[in-house]
Amino acid sequence: MEFDTIAAIATPMGEGGIAIIRVSGPEAIAVVDKLYRGKKKLSTVDSHTINYGHLIDPQTGERIEEVMVSVMRAPRTYTREDVVEVNCHGGLVSVKRVLQYILKYGARLAEPGEFTKRAFLNGRLDLSQAEAVIDLIRAKTDRAMTIAMQQVEGRLSKLIKRLRQDLIETLAHIEVTIDYPEHDVEEVTQQFLQEKCEKVKAEINRLLTTAEQGKILREGLKTAIIGRPNVGKSSLLNALVHENKAIVTDIPGTTRDVIEEYVNVRGVPLQLIDTAGIRETEDVVERIGVERSRQVLEEADLILLVLNIAEPLTEEDEALLQLAKGMKTIMIANKTDLEPRLDTEALQARYPDIPLIKTSIKEEQGLDELEQAIADLYFSGAIAAGDMTYVSNSRHIALLNEAKQAIDDALAGLEMGVPVDVVQIDIQKAWEKLGEIIGDNVSESLIDQLFSQFCLGK
Amino acid sequence: MEFDTIAAIATPMGEGGIAIIRVSGPEAIAVVDKLYRGKKKLSTVDSHTINYGHLIDPQTGERIEEVMVSVMRAPRTYTREDVVEVNCHGGLVSVKRVLQYILKYGARLAEPGEFTKRAFLNGRLDLSQAEAVIDLIRAKTDRAMTIAMQQVEGRLSKLIKRLRQDLIETLAHIEVTIDYPEHDVEEVTQQFLQEKCEKVKAEINRLLTTAEQGKILREGLKTAIIGRPNVGKSSLLNALVHENKAIVTDIPGTTRDVIEEYVNVRGVPLQLIDTAGIRETEDVVERIGVERSRQVLEEADLILLVLNIAEPLTEEDEALLQLAKGMKTIMIANKTDLEPRLDTEALQARYPDIPLIKTSIKEEQGLDELEQAIADLYFSGAIAAGDMTYVSNSRHIALLNEAKQAIDDALAGLEMGVPVDVVQIDIQKAWEKLGEIIGDNVSESLIDQLFSQFCLGK
Repeated sequence: MEFDTIAAIATPMGEGGIAIIRVSGPEAIAVVDKLYRGKKKLSTVDSHTINYGHLIDPQTGERIEEVMVSVMRAPRTYTREDVVEVNCHGGLVSVKRVLQYILKYGARLAEPGEFTKRAFLNGRLDLSQAEAVIDLIRAKTDRAMTIAMQQVEGRLSKLIKRLRQDLIETLAHIEVTIDYPEHDVEEVTQQFLQEKCEKVKAEINRLLTTAEQGKILREGLKTAIIGRPNVGKSSLLNALVHENKAIVTDIPGTTRDVIEEYVNVRGVPLQLIDTAGIRETEDVVERIGVERSRQVLEEADLILLVLNIAEPLTEEDEALLQLAKGMKTIMIANKTDLEPRLDTEALQARYPDIPLIKTSIKEEQGLDELEQAIADLYFSGAIAAGDMTYVSNSRHIALLNEAKQAIDDALAGLEMGVPVDVVQIDIQKAWEKLGEIIGDNVSESLIDQLFSQFCLGK
Repeated sequence: MEFDTIAAIATPMGEGGIAIIRVSGPEAIAVVDKLYRGKKKLSTVDSHTINYGHLIDPQTGERIEEVMVSVMRAPRTYTREDVVEVNCHGGLVSVKRVLQYILKYGARLAEPGEFTKRAFLNGRLDLSQAEAVIDLIRAKTDRAMTIAMQQVEGRLSKLIKRLRQDLIETLAHIEVTIDYPEHDVEEVTQQFLQEKCEKVKAEINRLLTTAEQGKILREGLKTAIIGRPNVGKSSLLNALVHENKAIVTDIPGTTRDVIEEYVNVRGVPLQLIDTAGIRETEDVVERIGVERSRQVLEEADLILLVLNIAEPLTEEDEALLQLAKGMKTIMIANKTDLEPRLDTEALQARYPDIPLIKTSIKEEQGLDELEQAIADLYFSGAIAAGDMTYVSNSRHIALLNEAKQAIDDALAGLEMGVPVDVVQIDIQKAWEKLGEIIGDNVSESLIDQLFSQFCLGK
């Protein structure tokens, strides 16, 4: 495909040692050559070389910036087009000025994600790989980053392609049997189709079981801190945020509240939900009511239920324990610095599956145990060796579910003895749904929407 | 000089398309080679090439990141040492992880400004050039950026070196005359020395006259908004900030207040001082009292005095007008949407040198005229063509003043007929002070202090 030439600032905005303006497209080298003065014209330098020089204003001859220009010719580039990266002194004025000149002399400002979109449209990445690029950038822990890397490198794509290959071979068998019944091919029996479909279904199921963990890895473990007023919820929140480095994102538009929502507890990314509420007033439950609590808990992957060890269990505590039933919960008996009045042994006996940790957040006791309990709860789940393929993207999960449904329909049809050309339609659908994961036959508007979530310059 | 190998993240922290880890020193290539897997070992690639590959964990073989590695061999590099730049996917986890591996495998974390410090210590930049690198990054307008660029490229250095050359020749003359009075050299008469000194002094004076403008260009025009309560000060502040894009710095640690202090009005960087005060309460003057007003005004380069056109001049207005006398001031007769009761013509007649602009900030009227008045006031000053050398750095200004003082002492001595070997001491001192600007004979602690103001990775 042939596109126009685009440019954008590719490094985060702010003061730094280096800033980069990335230019991609057929005119990338020519555009920058209009501004560049160095030993050689960029059009004559070798590919994948770094060239020292200056950018000048072609009209006045004034030097704009001292630069290092990386020239990378198609197709061994990020976008598979000619790519020029102008490396200039960090600094907002500098980088904006260089960008303005490049736009003035023939490039168009790139949309968010447009470089990666071209990598996709030019066939260097399939859609699931391209989507993983943004996961890579947004990764909040090493583990999430590793999984995104594997997806960028095509681990999920390879699996999906293998499943589609199985389905297409099945479809081919059906075709041949229908069109040329006289040919001597393996007979398409009900049993053969059933086996093939069961195999694909099992594989899809295996992928879907990784989805929950994958999503948590990508988005963080949604964690709700609940408890009666004055049991120490906001102290616990603050302790978690301050003990563990909050994951600072520095993204324009994100507020401090959002920034502090993420903490990395022993490799587990916790997304503390409704923290604003807890901050605002110690008395969340009181303020938001049981109905709202229920909503918050419905979203949560993990519940930290704070109790006051200095008081016997109240009706409200009991209500919260009921709310948390059946969810991943940790009980925190706080205020061990006070005279204990809560029978924690009886409580533990009543809820043997819920870990109970005693803390005095005020005196910084028990936090280690709490963090260990969070990590245990988390890592006891599926997250195992690094050689698993995780599905973390909601779009992929939805498509896997649709493909699975189509296979289920095919299996039901086979059971009921419907003709193979009807079953064929379901198998075809499963094949298509899997294809959408890697970008086969997806609409332009979907592509636009997916890439618009990217940052500028990627 | 031989140094150890240092590494740091060179791009601003945050989400972006590209992040760079810069490594410099004798082991730079070897360190990254331990982690890099690509077509060739980095130790075998040509200088100034870009190499695609992966970083792996040497112990587990796990892929850490997909990277482009720029290899630049000494001496054609920023530091004059071997430099490797590892280009990875933007994103905090990714870039921190890559840095950690590089530190683990043999590099040391660079201090702020350490790369530029090496460029200085290795003789690629003199001190005034290195100092201008940080001005370049922090530049708030194109103009400030251009001037910093010229200083990085050595325009100031060249001038200083020429002056020092003049002085050293004068000193040589004195030496020869003192040591070999029998030689047939041009006699070192009082007049000869006087002429030389006057010449250097004139040049230093010329540089010092640019200092005020240079400092403003670098640091912004310190602007105070003053006026009685309820005349519209905070509305004016908000209008200036919102009409003109506030210069957002995004530097960790700077508060929003500080961020919004800078606005770029038609190329003039305004640093709005005491804005917090204005924000807090409309009644600054009331709150801070005349004494504090006086202090604020003393710091200011420009005063925006807001009056209420709907009321006759009050005693308080008069007091403020007196305070602002002799300073660069613009009178703003605000609230033209109301019935005018202020005799602006009489006021203008009394203060013919102070521009008076009528505005209704509420109805967004007169702001254009105000901005034009600010720009006129500013550009009517010395700021002329792009071929002037500006001194903007306080350290340089102080040293120029000291050199000038030494020359003045020499001239006074000559006038009083003191022996030339006494005058020689003063000329020697002027030569030394000028030398300190470009880094001659400066102490290690001064160098450390200067570079510590840099950002990490530069």
